[in-house]
Amino acid sequence: MPEPGSEFERIAALVSSLPRGEGVIVGPGDDAAVLRVRDGRDLVATTDTFVEGRHFRRDVLTPAETGARLAAANLSDLAAMAAEPRWALLSLVLPPSWTHAECMMLERACARALAADGAAIVGGNLAAGEGPFTATLTLLGEVERGMQWTRGGAKPGDLVAVTGAPGSAAAFLALALSGDPPSRSRAAHELAERVVAPPSRVRFARALARAGGVHAAIDISDGLAADLAHACTASGVGTRLLEAALPADGALETAARVLSNSGGQERGASPADDLTRLVLGASDDYELLLMFEPSKWSEYERLARECAVPLTHIGETTEGDARVLVTWRGTETVLDQPGWDHFARR
Amino acid sequence: MPEPGSEFERIAALVSSLPRGEGVIVGPGDDAAVLRVRDGRDLVATTDTFVEGRHFRRDVLTPAETGARLAAANLSDLAAMAAEPRWALLSLVLPPSWTHAECMMLERACARALAADGAAIVGGNLAAGEGPFTATLTLLGEVERGMQWTRGGAKPGDLVAVTGAPGSAAAFLALALSGDPPSRSRAAHELAERVVAPPSRVRFARALARAGGVHAAIDISDGLAADLAHACTASGVGTRLLEAALPADGALETAARVLSNSGGQERGASPADDLTRLVLGASDDYELLLMFEPSKWSEYERLARECAVPLTHIGETTEGDARVLVTWRGTETVLDQPGWDHFARR
Repeated sequence: MPEPGSEFERIAALVSSLPRGEGVIVGPGDDAAVLRVRDGRDLVATTDTFVEGRHFRRDVLTPAETGARLAAANLSDLAAMAAEPRWALLSLVLPPSWTHAECMMLERACARALAADGAAIVGGNLAAGEGPFTATLTLLGEVERGMQWTRGGAKPGDLVAVTGAPGSAAAFLALALSGDPPSRSRAAHELAERVVAPPSRVRFARALARAGGVHAAIDISDGLAADLAHACTASGVGTRLLEAALPADGALETAARVLSNSGGQERGASPADDLTRLVLGASDDYELLLMFEPSKWSEYERLARECAVPLTHIGETTEGDARVLVTWRGTETVLDQPGWDHFARR
Repeated sequence: MPEPGSEFERIAALVSSLPRGEGVIVGPGDDAAVLRVRDGRDLVATTDTFVEGRHFRRDVLTPAETGARLAAANLSDLAAMAAEPRWALLSLVLPPSWTHAECMMLERACARALAADGAAIVGGNLAAGEGPFTATLTLLGEVERGMQWTRGGAKPGDLVAVTGAPGSAAAFLALALSGDPPSRSRAAHELAERVVAPPSRVRFARALARAGGVHAAIDISDGLAADLAHACTASGVGTRLLEAALPADGALETAARVLSNSGGQERGASPADDLTRLVLGASDDYELLLMFEPSKWSEYERLARECAVPLTHIGETTEGDARVLVTWRGTETVLDQPGWDHFARR
């Protein structure tokens, strides 16, 4: 932290107005933070960077919403490890086009979203820069030793389930950008809400971890199909999805229909195809994909209700090839073929 | 870590070619890393961002040197807490102007400098961006519980000492930029070497911590006078420096003389004045300022020799006002007056 003058003190001032985290032995304002991991726990660490114009647009998201999404992106990584968030370091590169007030709104919203899951900002960095606004958040958490989930533990015959409504972020962005100028007012309130203020899955993940039976978990911020393929590869299993089982609520159905009509979709594709592509395709949703012991399903359903988390059973893992198959348009399709996803942005 | 595709895998591939850190339960390639802090130790966390054009220039430093300096900036923060480096997360924002090879050289040099102090890269993030190259490193370490140094523990009557040759980074940069085009060949090899490959003070800090007696410590990456003032404020003590005691070797003396002659310095100032300004002024040197029990001096001198670390006793702390006084040009000057430092860049 090389600029402890006015810059660091600004973060320190912000942080001092928020609840100080537990286990903070030395907080913001020194060369480094000193933190106490509880006995019998391991440290869990993740980091995520948002670059303006690439990971968010100011004509679609407010600074506060961007701060909340930055927190959510990192919280989702910890949820996917069954970890409990504790401390964070926030580094910003600020171009002249950002006002002090906008920057504070982003920081504050990020800190608030972290605090809702028990994590406190304990350090950071602030630098002036000529390029796009860039924010890097490093989030530290704890997990009981040996209790972490990874992508690699699924077994053939596991059930596969996903939280939330994957595809929502892609649908929201596509609607906002479907006219000139971009406007989020084209997205229904229900759809916008889950994108601009993504709910945290940390509490639900911790409840499942206590219940036991999760063999593999992954955050689907690359999109459901892509991250499902990552988990299959890491676990050495395949997955058979049923198109009819994919979660898609009214808000997503409406979005797919509007995007279809506005010509944003593949020619000749039906609205149902477009909906499937939305749900499976590239989309920055901070939701969890879980592979688990089939006998646990009814208990997980109950925990999901208690945590108010939509949870959908979307398929089963299979022996052999780490392929993701979906019964789609009446035939089996392999999802990791190039070109299946015309939403792909990476 | 939302982009685990080709981008994250590139870092993972790099990391797999380097020694895997100890205490790494889950390494790169999952949603987060899982790390084991040893019993009886606390976690120490710092982060630092380098933005091209602001914290480094490609016409003065190679990508590998920039990577080594990024590691050094963070290692220095941990040294200032008496902590032992263990794990790091590296996040890069890459503009098209950087080649893959340049990026790999930076990453590799950063990882190598970290490894030399026992730390391993366990995660990170890679994003494309249109702005300047930006690298954020978060470094995690450990310290025996209750053994960390802070800025705030100095007592009146402590000795004040500094490692290395503060001002070297400012002198190197001023020389490199003193003509058009910029060229580091204007700086003597000895001066350049300590800037492009900053030595780590971690081993020395750990040796001092074992010896005991350090009351306050701070990394002087803001410059000796500025960070001395930070430590004085945090500790509630003043410091009286003696100009004649300030460390300045032949390389710095030559640099001050050359810069004086080239008109880069204040009119009417003598070369000795310029040298003092260089040593005290803003300069990105990753050196330690220490305030400690006077009885420890001879032991610290011995440890410094053993660790091959230049260590200079530059003054004493005083009771009362948190002011930094220096006997300069024959009179006492208060260093935290605005305008004393015409090198100031922030």
